[in-house]
Amino acid sequence: MRTVDIIIKKRNGDSLFADEIRHMVQGCVTGRIPDYQLTAWLMAIYFRGMSFAETAALTDAMVHSGEVYDLSSIPLTKVDKHSTGGVGDKVSLVLAPLVAAAGVPVPMVAGRGLGHTGGTLDKLEAIPGFNVRLDAKAFRDQVERIGVALIGQSESLAPADRKMYALRDVTGTVESIPLIAASIMSKKIAAGIDALVMDVKTGNGAFMTETKDAAQLAHTLVAIGREVGLPVVALLTDMSQPLGRAVGNAVEVLETIECLQGRGPADLRELLLALGAEMLVLGNVARSVAVARDKLVECLDSGKALEKFTAMVAAQGGDPRVVEDRSLLMPGDVQEEALAAVRSGFVTSFDTRRIGLASMVLGGGRQTVEDRIDHAVGLYIEKKLGEPVSNGDLLCRLLYRDSDRMKRVRDMLAGAIAIADSPVTPPRLLKFRVDANDLTKSMGGEEGG
Amino acid sequence: MRTVDIIIKKRNGDSLFADEIRHMVQGCVTGRIPDYQLTAWLMAIYFRGMSFAETAALTDAMVHSGEVYDLSSIPLTKVDKHSTGGVGDKVSLVLAPLVAAAGVPVPMVAGRGLGHTGGTLDKLEAIPGFNVRLDAKAFRDQVERIGVALIGQSESLAPADRKMYALRDVTGTVESIPLIAASIMSKKIAAGIDALVMDVKTGNGAFMTETKDAAQLAHTLVAIGREVGLPVVALLTDMSQPLGRAVGNAVEVLETIECLQGRGPADLRELLLALGAEMLVLGNVARSVAVARDKLVECLDSGKALEKFTAMVAAQGGDPRVVEDRSLLMPGDVQEEALAAVRSGFVTSFDTRRIGLASMVLGGGRQTVEDRIDHAVGLYIEKKLGEPVSNGDLLCRLLYRDSDRMKRVRDMLAGAIAIADSPVTPPRLLKFRVDANDLTKSMGGEEGG
Repeated sequence: MRTVDIIIKKRNGDSLFADEIRHMVQGCVTGRIPDYQLTAWLMAIYFRGMSFAETAALTDAMVHSGEVYDLSSIPLTKVDKHSTGGVGDKVSLVLAPLVAAAGVPVPMVAGRGLGHTGGTLDKLEAIPGFNVRLDAKAFRDQVERIGVALIGQSESLAPADRKMYALRDVTGTVESIPLIAASIMSKKIAAGIDALVMDVKTGNGAFMTETKDAAQLAHTLVAIGREVGLPVVALLTDMSQPLGRAVGNAVEVLETIECLQGRGPADLRELLLALGAEMLVLGNVARSVAVARDKLVECLDSGKALEKFTAMVAAQGGDPRVVEDRSLLMPGDVQEEALAAVRSGFVTSFDTRRIGLASMVLGGGRQTVEDRIDHAVGLYIEKKLGEPVSNGDLLCRLLYRDSDRMKRVRDMLAGAIAIADSPVTPPRLLKFRVDANDLTKSMGGEEGG
Repeated sequence: MRTVDIIIKKRNGDSLFADEIRHMVQGCVTGRIPDYQLTAWLMAIYFRGMSFAETAALTDAMVHSGEVYDLSSIPLTKVDKHSTGGVGDKVSLVLAPLVAAAGVPVPMVAGRGLGHTGGTLDKLEAIPGFNVRLDAKAFRDQVERIGVALIGQSESLAPADRKMYALRDVTGTVESIPLIAASIMSKKIAAGIDALVMDVKTGNGAFMTETKDAAQLAHTLVAIGREVGLPVVALLTDMSQPLGRAVGNAVEVLETIECLQGRGPADLRELLLALGAEMLVLGNVARSVAVARDKLVECLDSGKALEKFTAMVAAQGGDPRVVEDRSLLMPGDVQEEALAAVRSGFVTSFDTRRIGLASMVLGGGRQTVEDRIDHAVGLYIEKKLGEPVSNGDLLCRLLYRDSDRMKRVRDMLAGAIAIADSPVTPPRLLKFRVDANDLTKSMGGEEGG
């Protein structure tokens, strides 16, 4: 099998066989295929795309490029949730213990933030002592014992993905739906889960701003799942404003705790219940999403979810007193600056990406993977889409440590929250749902459905 | 200027600025840009193409990636001819001395054969002692003294082209018209010429089998010339049968000598006069192609062209007695095998590529660049398109040294020359001509024509 012939085949728009895709992925990891052939191949995939079957073969080859966690000693159906990333998205922090409290084991492998989006691991590390680096055994043991663990990706999981992503990042091939889908799914499958709920975000704070692209990604993720035998349900959700009110790290942990206490922003709670209900149904502890929602609400209101969160924090070396003592998350030298409305009217749009970047500039995110994070800084959005405002009302609070950075952010945010005379109807948070049945339908007769 | 942004710009279909293209080409030669970014960029060019202006900028950057020969001490207009390659194409061997004999200096930098096509340098090296490796000074001195020199490309000419071609060869980006055009033109311009005649071949023995692709290449070559101030005339010519009758190395030198003696195959002579006439007009020694043709015929018939050939052979260390003594080119141990027609009728088509490959298999060509060539082997085509044949007539003679190879070739060639009941009209050798005026017309209003 000549590598150049595989590149030419894809370049010409023909579908690759699984063994041809495996040849490329294995050659990537062993180094037998030089990077300059891999990047030409990736660019050809960018232009020609990949069928569902090819994308599943790519995913499978990437899964088997490294270690695959074996969680089979845990007899229940293990379900994870993954989000394509957004601004203020602290869902994983609440959802993992909440779903575990409802009886579904959640072995969650999460990521770090980059650019305008935050990362679950960075948020967790705002909790003093919290350790996201568990090895495969400690990970499995914790899921077995308390039903939930939230860790970072080890070097041994899907190493082909790491290598290919590094090449894509510098060669203009990040924005390819089959490559994005295979990257997400390979890491999830290698973590040993039995089912997955995907939160595919769309809007001006998401990586995929267009609903059309996000929908295509959702279908591809579900299709890969079907091909490899992993049930996947995808929800397309709105990211045209920050989720909840807190954007940062410690501030998002505080909002997480509020939410686990049965309070917290309405949009965050709505999304939690929607994603969590799908997880409970996939995890076979609820017959329907309606039943599942009731169960989740009960877990939130009874304090069981918060209890599970506290147990998880303690199990991973974190200080569980953060649940009662917010000063453990917020050092005294953090200052606050208020941004006020300069006119009256209604909030009509957010430059959501810019709000995410503002958190980064304050020190709460990374411009490059080497940047260090200041967990205490961040911001609170005080008005959301559709809400009325009067001139002088508080729009946003900045928590900062460096006044130069604060001033830069204050300038950045001028106009990032638009106010107009007429109210707008806020976009629906839940846009639509995709599972394998929708796929069959959307593929029509060719799939024999 | 970030390399990844240039890749993304081209990937998105936007035109690159000259400084962006220069950044890529210079980075290619210095090694500052890693190969994996270059190949992704080349694949993006494969899919998106390049405008004439971009292709000219690419050519210019490649020219200046190395040495540029300075032939300005030679006051006349120096004209070269380049062919995209075919089977039996010995035109350069005759044309260079012929045009020089007519008063136009021909500083010709030629190539080697690969795969089914022969190479001018390999053919010249069939002449005992002939040296194709002259340095820049010796090259210029010889052109100054006798009006013609025929050499190989030195390592110092357009090194970016060599590096980029090596990468394209293994990443499926050879078949890109702007990349092909820039590769050809950069080497020619770096050799210090003042004008160029291009022989763009089309048909089943050419690299570009489709006339449409060959025409696009011809337009691109002429357009690059216009952008960089180098007059270029391109002729699209037929390669659906071998040119002349000889295919190989020594056999093609013999046919060259016949042609220089005013004899030789009609199609070869027709092509020589057409290409040569363009060179004489570009070289300002003839007002029209009609006048130029007369001048060339006179040079052939008077023996002046042959005299120039002999002088060139002698100047480059070759044995000039080859002109009279064919045994110097043909060692005694070469044997001959005849292939006869198995039916009567008319020659209706050639598998020209297969005939080129047959010469390679006999030992006269290279499968890989490391292969050594046996100059004495080759073949003679005894019937051409449209000619009548009777059962048992001689179709083709093989000159071979190894009988196993001969047998392989005999099998290969079964059916390579098709015979049918009804005669066909042979395709026109000269399909059409493109110069900068055609370009203006073909570009319509946008070019202000």
